[in-house]
Amino acid sequence: MERYVDFWQVTEAALRFAVRRLSIDTTNSQLERLMGAYLNPAAFDEARSALEALKGSPLAILSNGSPRMLDSAVRNNGLESYFAEIISVDKVKTYKPSPRIYALLNLTAAEILFVSYNLWDAAGAKAFGCPVCWCNRSGAEIEHWVFAPDFTVRQLDRVAETLPG
Amino acid sequence: MERYVDFWQVTEAALRFAVRRLSIDTTNSQLERLMGAYLNPAAFDEARSALEALKGSPLAILSNGSPRMLDSAVRNNGLESYFAEIISVDKVKTYKPSPRIYALLNLTAAEILFVSYNLWDAAGAKAFGCPVCWCNRSGAEIEHWVFAPDFTVRQLDRVAETLPG
Repeated sequence: MERYVDFWQVTEAALRFAVRRLSIDTTNSQLERLMGAYLNPAAFDEARSALEALKGSPLAILSNGSPRMLDSAVRNNGLESYFAEIISVDKVKTYKPSPRIYALLNLTAAEILFVSYNLWDAAGAKAFGCPVCWCNRSGAEIEHWVFAPDFTVRQLDRVAETLPG
Repeated sequence: MERYVDFWQVTEAALRFAVRRLSIDTTNSQLERLMGAYLNPAAFDEARSALEALKGSPLAILSNGSPRMLDSAVRNNGLESYFAEIISVDKVKTYKPSPRIYALLNLTAAEILFVSYNLWDAAGAKAFGCPVCWCNRSGAEIEHWVFAPDFTVRQLDRVAETLPG
């Protein structure tokens, strides 16, 4: 389709559709409060220790979220000092898993360890050529597919162990 | 991601994943029989009369299905004489709603009346520039979005009425 609308707008449209579909009466100010939650998500308990353990390598966020969503989420959790770069797809106005997005990291694919909770995202990075680590927090079964992650961990604080020593 | 696997393989992978996820014991021959159903879907009751009413205009199928799935579905319902073309995305190895697919019709977008049951497909055709008719068989609410179909019908036999006289 190749029509980009940023993730903030997509998220709000989805929320409005969901409440209408479920016939939930909501005021605009309630919807605004719910949208506000996307600016202040709680980091997983082990996020800080996971980032500490990875400090020796430059870390980047590469996300479908809008720049405002990412900046706000990182800052509200006080994690901004850990990241060399926070990259939103908004820069090129298309979404992962397009290879144009993984290219934004400006590294040879093999130099990246791509970590994701989303299997589709891990598959996109793998198709781009990155080693990938799937954080399978819920213990979901892997979908049988042409792709398998190089590493699978249950929590973020196990990611550092997958790096070459 | 830009990795194409044809719709037959995607469908089979989805079926195998679904039965595993739902812990349904199935034999390979049962799975093969289920896959066979995709080669012989029943046309909607009004399909033939809808196609009769549209006979004055050249009709084409433009589908994400694999060539074998499309040919078999059309033939098993005895509808092949109605179509000037049956086009599978397999020709260019990507899926709708990529604009590359709508371009396969080889017509100026404005010359096409694109009919779909899928709102995402109608939106893709609209983004390409086609007038679109959404066949909203289930009476679903339209998702609020940047796109609205030019026509909405409840059944295929109402499509002909939307054509200019």
